[in-house]
Amino acid sequence: MSEQIKITLPDGSVREYDKGVTSHEIALSISEGLARNVLSAKVNGEVWDSNRAIDEDAEVQLLTWNDEDGKKTFWHSSAHLMAEALQALYPSTKFGIGPSIDNGFYYDVDFGDQEFDSADLEKIEKKMTELARQKNTFDRKEVAKADAVAYFEEKGDEYKLELLEGLEDGSITFYTQGEFTDLCRGPHIPNTGAIKAIKLLNVAGAYWRGDESRKQLTRIYGVAFPKAKELKEHLAMLEEAKKRDHRKLGKELELFTFSEKVGMGLPLWLPKGAILRDRLESFLKKEQKRAGYLPVVTPHIGNKNLYITSGHYEKYGEDSFQPIHTPSEGEEFLLKPMNCPHHCEVYRSRPRSYKELPYRLAEFGTVYRYEQSGELHGLTRVRGFTQDDAHIFCRPDQVKEEFKKVIDLVLYVFKSLGFDNYTAQVSLRDPENKTKYIGSDEDWALAEAAIQEAADEKGLVTVVETGEAAFYGPKLDFMVKDALGRSWQLGTIQVDYQLPQRFELEYTGSDNQKHRPVMIHRAPFGSMERFTAVLIEHCAGNFPLWLAPEQIAVLPISEKYADYAEQVYNAFTMEDINGFIDHRDEKIGRKIRDAEVKKIPYMIIAGEKEAAEGKVSLRKHGEGDIGTFTLEEAVKYLQEKIQLSIAGE
Amino acid sequence: MSEQIKITLPDGSVREYDKGVTSHEIALSISEGLARNVLSAKVNGEVWDSNRAIDEDAEVQLLTWNDEDGKKTFWHSSAHLMAEALQALYPSTKFGIGPSIDNGFYYDVDFGDQEFDSADLEKIEKKMTELARQKNTFDRKEVAKADAVAYFEEKGDEYKLELLEGLEDGSITFYTQGEFTDLCRGPHIPNTGAIKAIKLLNVAGAYWRGDESRKQLTRIYGVAFPKAKELKEHLAMLEEAKKRDHRKLGKELELFTFSEKVGMGLPLWLPKGAILRDRLESFLKKEQKRAGYLPVVTPHIGNKNLYITSGHYEKYGEDSFQPIHTPSEGEEFLLKPMNCPHHCEVYRSRPRSYKELPYRLAEFGTVYRYEQSGELHGLTRVRGFTQDDAHIFCRPDQVKEEFKKVIDLVLYVFKSLGFDNYTAQVSLRDPENKTKYIGSDEDWALAEAAIQEAADEKGLVTVVETGEAAFYGPKLDFMVKDALGRSWQLGTIQVDYQLPQRFELEYTGSDNQKHRPVMIHRAPFGSMERFTAVLIEHCAGNFPLWLAPEQIAVLPISEKYADYAEQVYNAFTMEDINGFIDHRDEKIGRKIRDAEVKKIPYMIIAGEKEAAEGKVSLRKHGEGDIGTFTLEEAVKYLQEKIQLSIAGE
Repeated sequence: MSEQIKITLPDGSVREYDKGVTSHEIALSISEGLARNVLSAKVNGEVWDSNRAIDEDAEVQLLTWNDEDGKKTFWHSSAHLMAEALQALYPSTKFGIGPSIDNGFYYDVDFGDQEFDSADLEKIEKKMTELARQKNTFDRKEVAKADAVAYFEEKGDEYKLELLEGLEDGSITFYTQGEFTDLCRGPHIPNTGAIKAIKLLNVAGAYWRGDESRKQLTRIYGVAFPKAKELKEHLAMLEEAKKRDHRKLGKELELFTFSEKVGMGLPLWLPKGAILRDRLESFLKKEQKRAGYLPVVTPHIGNKNLYITSGHYEKYGEDSFQPIHTPSEGEEFLLKPMNCPHHCEVYRSRPRSYKELPYRLAEFGTVYRYEQSGELHGLTRVRGFTQDDAHIFCRPDQVKEEFKKVIDLVLYVFKSLGFDNYTAQVSLRDPENKTKYIGSDEDWALAEAAIQEAADEKGLVTVVETGEAAFYGPKLDFMVKDALGRSWQLGTIQVDYQLPQRFELEYTGSDNQKHRPVMIHRAPFGSMERFTAVLIEHCAGNFPLWLAPEQIAVLPISEKYADYAEQVYNAFTMEDINGFIDHRDEKIGRKIRDAEVKKIPYMIIAGEKEAAEGKVSLRKHGEGDIGTFTLEEAVKYLQEKIQLSIAGE
Repeated sequence: MSEQIKITLPDGSVREYDKGVTSHEIALSISEGLARNVLSAKVNGEVWDSNRAIDEDAEVQLLTWNDEDGKKTFWHSSAHLMAEALQALYPSTKFGIGPSIDNGFYYDVDFGDQEFDSADLEKIEKKMTELARQKNTFDRKEVAKADAVAYFEEKGDEYKLELLEGLEDGSITFYTQGEFTDLCRGPHIPNTGAIKAIKLLNVAGAYWRGDESRKQLTRIYGVAFPKAKELKEHLAMLEEAKKRDHRKLGKELELFTFSEKVGMGLPLWLPKGAILRDRLESFLKKEQKRAGYLPVVTPHIGNKNLYITSGHYEKYGEDSFQPIHTPSEGEEFLLKPMNCPHHCEVYRSRPRSYKELPYRLAEFGTVYRYEQSGELHGLTRVRGFTQDDAHIFCRPDQVKEEFKKVIDLVLYVFKSLGFDNYTAQVSLRDPENKTKYIGSDEDWALAEAAIQEAADEKGLVTVVETGEAAFYGPKLDFMVKDALGRSWQLGTIQVDYQLPQRFELEYTGSDNQKHRPVMIHRAPFGSMERFTAVLIEHCAGNFPLWLAPEQIAVLPISEKYADYAEQVYNAFTMEDINGFIDHRDEKIGRKIRDAEVKKIPYMIIAGEKEAAEGKVSLRKHGEGDIGTFTLEEAVKYLQEKIQLSIAGE
C-alpha cells in the first residue's frame, strides 16, 4: 500500500490521499465539474499548479475563476500564451516580465528591429486563440542555474539573463507550453485550453525594471476569460468605465481642474466641485457632531521635531516633500503628511481625566505626500488631499464600543451615497511573529477581539487577514463595490498603540494613577479627493439629489417669464435648494436637452400658464414630466426628495 | 514793514504773517486757548516744532493732543524727559534711541555698571515730574557733524557716535531741555511743562539696532499725558486690556493653544475655538452665497513658477519660508503666501465671456508667511492664517457696483459682530509720481472715483490718503474701534491691475474682442486668526449669542434629574443650539457660578418642579433669573435671541 497523507480542506474536513496526489486529483475525487474548473490551488498558503504533486500533509484550497488567486493564475498563463504567440510571429523577440495584474495581464517585450505596431494586436489575438485550442499543458521543470543561463544565452535574451542573476541555484523553475519556455516561478493553469476569450487592450512603453536610464520595452496589455460571454461583459464594463472616468466627467461637469503652474497632482476644486465637497463635509460634520466628535483646526506644516517624535520623519523623510527652511533661526518645517501628530499635541495641551474619554477630535485636514509624477491619476492619486480625519483617544475597554459607533457612521455614509455593496477586512497581527508589533499582548488580544465582535454585532461581512495589521495596531478596512463591480478601499478604522507612546499621552484614571490612552484613527470617506472620484464613477455624475451641485434648473419658456423665473428660483434657494436659471434666448426644448446633458436632477419650467397660476411644471432627469405643482408644493416636493436621498432612498 | 508770507490753514483759509512767524504765534492769532494746546505743527507736510520760524509761504496744520502726530510729539518729548531724569539719577548712562510708539514711548539705555532694577521706575517717574515742573524749553540747534562727534566723544556715548556715522553734515540737530542734550531730528513740544502725568510701565531687553549679535540694552517703556485724568483712564484701559488679552482668554476659554513641537506662531484651534471659527465661516459663506460668490478650494502649496509669474517670489522669496524640494524631478514648491495666484489659475481654466462677469471666487484659504519669532503675538501675528479671501474678476465699469456690494457685506459683518465704531481709509495713488504705479491713467481715474463714490453712497466716514495706494491699485481699508477705544485695521478691498496682466487674464467682450478684467481682492474679516483675537478682546470673551461656542449650560439640580436634563439638552441641540450638561455632583449654586465664570450666555435649570411640569428655568449670564418656560417655549426663546444677535441686536 502506498503512503497516505492527510489533506485538510477549507471547510475543516480531512481526507486521506496517496502521497503525491495533485490538487486536480483531489478535485476529481469531489466532482468532475469541480475538477474542470480548478485553475490552481493554495497548498499550505502558497499557490501551486493544480497538477503538482503534494508529498506531505497539507491544507489545500482549490482555486477557480471565482477566487482572486485563481484569476491571477489564469491571467498569468494568458501572458505566457501571448508570449508564445509573439515568439511565433516575431521570432527574435526578447522577453522581460509578464505578470497578471488587477484586471488582466501584460508582457514587456523587446521587438528589436522587427516591425510592430498596435494594429497588429488582432493578429496576435488570433495566434493566441489558435495556440490555446492546442490545449498545450504548462509543464514545470526545476532547472540548475547554469543550465538556465545556458538556455537564455543561446536564445540571446539579455533580460532573462539579468533576472537570473538575482536568483539562487536550486530555486529556479522553467515553464513550457507548446513551443515556448519561460523562466517562471508559476503557478499556471493545467493547459491553454481553458483560455477561450482573449482581448489585447493596448500598448505602452515601459522602462526595463522601471528605471528611466534603461531601455524602454513595449508593454502589451491584455485580458482573457474562460467564456466569451465574460469577455463581452468585461469589454462593455471597460467601455462604460471610460464614459464614467472621473477625469472626463470632472471636466465636463466643471468639478475640478489641474494647472501646470500650480503643480501636477494638486487639484483646484472649481465652484461646482467645491459645492459638492462642502456638502459632503457638512453632511459628515453634522453626523460627527451627533456622535460626540469635537472639531479642531490645525496648521498644514509642523516643526521637523514633531515628525521626529511621531516617527514620520524617519520613515518617510527622504521620499517626501523636503523640509522647509526659514530665512533665520535655523528652524525646519515639514508639510504635514498626516494629521495625527497635531491631534496628539491638542490632546497634550492640558492634563486629561478618564472622565473626558473617549475624546474624539475631528478635522478635515489637508495633507501633502509626494508621489512620482508618473503615479498621479486624476483625483485618486494626488500630492495633496483632505482626509475626513478623526482620532479617538480612549481607554482600552472602550475600543469595542467606539468601533461599533464608527461602523454605524461608515455605514450611514455608504447608504447616503448609494454604496450598497461592501465588505470589511479585519487585519490582525501575525501571532507567529509578535516582535514585529508594538503594544502588549493583553492590549492586542482585547483590541482584536473588540474589532471582530464589533464587526459581528454590526452584521458586517468580514474577511479576516492574519498578519495584515499595521505594526502599531489592528484595523478594519471597508471595501466597496461600485456600480461597475469594481472594488475600492474606502473608509478605515485603525487602532494605534504607537503614537500614544511616542507622544507620552496620559490620562488620570479613576484610580488616580496615570494611564496611557489607546488611539483610534478613522476616516469614513478616506480622502475627499479619492472619495469624490469613486463617487463620480459610481453614479456616472448623476449625484444623489442632496449632493448634486446643481439640483434644479429653472427654465423660463421665454424672456417674458424671466421675472417669474427669478421669483421661482428664489423660493427654492431660500430653502437651500440650488441650481441656476437658464436665461438664454433658446427654445424650451433646447433648454431641457441641455439640462439633461448636465445631469441636473430636476427642471422647473415657468411659462405663461404657470406664471398666471403661480405654478411650475416639474421634470425629472432621465424620466421626463412629473406634473404641475404650486410653487409651494414644488419646494416641499423637492425638500422631501432631498431628505429621502440623504436616507439613501 | 517786514516781509509777509501766506499761511494756508487746513480749512483752506489763507492768512498773512510776518516772515519768521512760528506755529505757536499763528495759533495765538486765532485763540489763546488753542495756542496753549498746540504741541507741534505740520508745515508743508512735515512735523515741526511749534516755535520754529516759518520763512516762506506754507500750508500749516496745528497739531494738538487730538492729532496722532501731536500725541507723537508729546510722547517723543516725554522720552527726552525720561532721559534727562535718567542722566540725573544715573550719571554715566549712555543713550541709544528714544522714540514715541503707538501708546507712549521708550528709551533704550546702557546703564553700564550702575545698579538698576525695575523697582526704580517710581523714582525715575518722580524725577521726571520734578523736571517737568521746571517747564524747560526744548531748544533746537543745528550742529556741524564735527562738533556733534566732539560732544558725544567727550560724553563717551558710543551709541550716539554710531548713529552720527550714518548722518550727513548739515542735517544734524541737537535738542536741549534743562541739563540734557540729545542728538535728535525733533520735533518737540514747546516745554516740559505740558507733561503733567507720567507712568513708566515696564522694562525689557532690546538688542542695539535690533541685532542679536550686538549688546543688549535696557528698554524702559512709559506713557505720559497732559492731564492726570487721562493717565488714570489710560491705566484703567490697560488694566482692562490685560484682562481681555486674547492670549489669556483664549487659554481660559480653551479656544486655541500653541505647541512648541508644532511650531511657534502656528495656532492649534481647540474644539471651542474651532466651533466659533466654523460659525464665523458659515455665517460669511451664507452671506457670500447670497451675494453671488462661488466657492473654490485650492492647495496650500504651488509650484515656484506660479509665484515667479505672480511676482511674489521676486518680492518675498528671500524673507519667506524657503522652497520645498522634491526627492526627484527637480520641482520646487512654495507654501502659498496668498490665494490670488491660485484663483487666477481657476479663472484661466477655460475661456471667459463678459456675460460671466463679475466672476467672484471665494475661499477660506490658509496662507503661510514667515515672521521672526520675536514678532509673533498670540493670534494677531502668526506664521499661518486663514484669509476669508475672495477675488472678483470684473469689467472696469463694474468696479463701483462691486465696491458697494462688498461695503454692504463688510458693514453687515461688523453689525453682526458688535463693531459699531468704524471708519474707512481710501488710499489713492500719488498723482505727482505716476510712474510708481501700473495700470492706465484712465483705469486709475475710473477706479479711484468708483471707490470714493461707492464709499460716499454707502455713507461711510472716510479719510482719503493720497499716495497710500499699492503700486498695483487703489484700495479701501476699514478701521474699527474696539470697546476699549483701540483701533484695528479689519477688512480691506483692493483693486489690482497687476495680476490680470501677469497672468494674462482675458474675457471676450460683447464686441467679440479680448479684454483684460480688473481684479478686486477683498477680505471682510481679514484673517480668521486676527479677527478672532480682536473679537475676543472687544467682547471680553462674552461672544454674541449666535457665535458663542457654548450657548447654553443645562444644570440639573441633582443626579435625579440627569435624564430630564438630557431630554432638555437634546431639544436644544436638535435646533442647533449648543453647549453642555453639567452632570457634576455639585450644588446648583456652584454650577451657576461656574457657568458664569465660563461666560455661558444662558443657563437652563432642570429640577423637580421643572421635570414634573416639562418646564425649565432660564438664567442669563450676568443678569440672573428670567423665568420659567415650557421646554418648547425655551427653545423658541433662544432661537429668537440668536436671530436677534445675528442682526446685531
